[in-house]
Amino acid sequence: MRSRKMSLTNTLSTCFWVLGLLTSQVSASLNGTIPKRYGIVLFPAFDTTDVTGPLEVLNFIGLLHSTDVALLSDTLDPVSPEPKMMNKLNSSVWAPIVPTHTFDTAPEIDVLIVPGGPGARNPNITAVLDFIGRTAPNTKHVLNICTGSGISAKAGIMGGRKATTNKSAWTTITAYGPNTTWIPKARWVEDNSAEPPIWSSSGVTSGFDMMLQFVETFYSLQNATYISRLIEHVRITDPNNDPFAVNVDGTIL
Amino acid sequence: MRSRKMSLTNTLSTCFWVLGLLTSQVSASLNGTIPKRYGIVLFPAFDTTDVTGPLEVLNFIGLLHSTDVALLSDTLDPVSPEPKMMNKLNSSVWAPIVPTHTFDTAPEIDVLIVPGGPGARNPNITAVLDFIGRTAPNTKHVLNICTGSGISAKAGIMGGRKATTNKSAWTTITAYGPNTTWIPKARWVEDNSAEPPIWSSSGVTSGFDMMLQFVETFYSLQNATYISRLIEHVRITDPNNDPFAVNVDGTIL
Repeated sequence: MRSRKMSLTNTLSTCFWVLGLLTSQVSASLNGTIPKRYGIVLFPAFDTTDVTGPLEVLNFIGLLHSTDVALLSDTLDPVSPEPKMMNKLNSSVWAPIVPTHTFDTAPEIDVLIVPGGPGARNPNITAVLDFIGRTAPNTKHVLNICTGSGISAKAGIMGGRKATTNKSAWTTITAYGPNTTWIPKARWVEDNSAEPPIWSSSGVTSGFDMMLQFVETFYSLQNATYISRLIEHVRITDPNNDPFAVNVDGTIL
Repeated sequence: MRSRKMSLTNTLSTCFWVLGLLTSQVSASLNGTIPKRYGIVLFPAFDTTDVTGPLEVLNFIGLLHSTDVALLSDTLDPVSPEPKMMNKLNSSVWAPIVPTHTFDTAPEIDVLIVPGGPGARNPNITAVLDFIGRTAPNTKHVLNICTGSGISAKAGIMGGRKATTNKSAWTTITAYGPNTTWIPKARWVEDNSAEPPIWSSSGVTSGFDMMLQFVETFYSLQNATYISRLIEHVRITDPNNDPFAVNVDGTIL
């Protein structure tokens, strides 16, 4: 009898611990609810994994929680990651992604994801910049992947914020955000100083780490651990652990 | 004059060192040439990054070396990674990929890439199995990503070979290859015991490590280092370093 009581006590205390863990991980910025509606902007010469890395994590989140991802572009034509100007050898190694919505028909978005890639340097993506500029203030979170933080800077939403970006593109991208505090040693940066919170990752595959941290923060540690195990991703969980850190001037540390 | 001679000697010795490095890394199985023609098979409910991880690496290889990737399916209809049977919450979080060729119009292939995903368990992918079975013997290399090794096993090309797979799917996938030696502790496995060599990775993101090892082996260490820096991927370079290793029966170590 005594052991059954102990067991019940243990179970209850575990439940409360789990409940506490869960509630402590729900951010006020998402109003106590987990995110449901994601939007990913697409533009010519995006980096493949800047888009598909977050999608990979959301592919599993979608099996655990009702979730929608809108793939957004200025038209519904397939968008290619091919950086045409750089493809001197005429290779064919890029798989286009087909948008689900145009910028004009975009649904409501809780979390806006801005990927990077060679196209981040393209001056002719004004439709993308306009969309980010007018949409970001109405979202609950912005996630910049890789050089996507340069696009968000050009869209005018990074002023007074801290951020990071791909260390191989440091000088070019940081110049897009003269009023942004750029962190040269960070696997990712969480700026929660204003609404919406804006997080930004380092290059490409660091997006997995930021995205799993986002899951840990706004869903649960259990979900993040479950997904990282399924995709066998060796997580970097400390945002200050940056194996590709640079000096402030962009030179390799 | 003496210093110019010294400098010439140094340059020549550097050249030979580089040449030596390059030639030592060219495998006989690719007849001394780097691969040019890749084929990736697609089927319903493939895992997104099983396809786009290798593509990410090839996106950069294509800028350094003339390279073509054929995206292959039984029709030219877009192929979705959505595992319909598992999508109980009716989420929309999957981005289809549009094939470039059907299995019947496939070009010549040097390197065949077989991704995995929930669809690896689908008994109704006979067109995929037929294609792999008749194509693999004419390729110079097969790369299985994640549970793709289970598909290759069902296609009949893994008999007498050693391989690994996603450790979360160990029992199901290894049962598809009763005559395969399954390695429960390996980030990836290189079977070079017969033609074509068949390599297989563990789950999803381990495909980056195997693909970069493939680049290091058949292109150059410089190419692999360059790409891993650009995509900020923290490489695991020892195939025996498996953070997700299991026991032989599939239980967690």
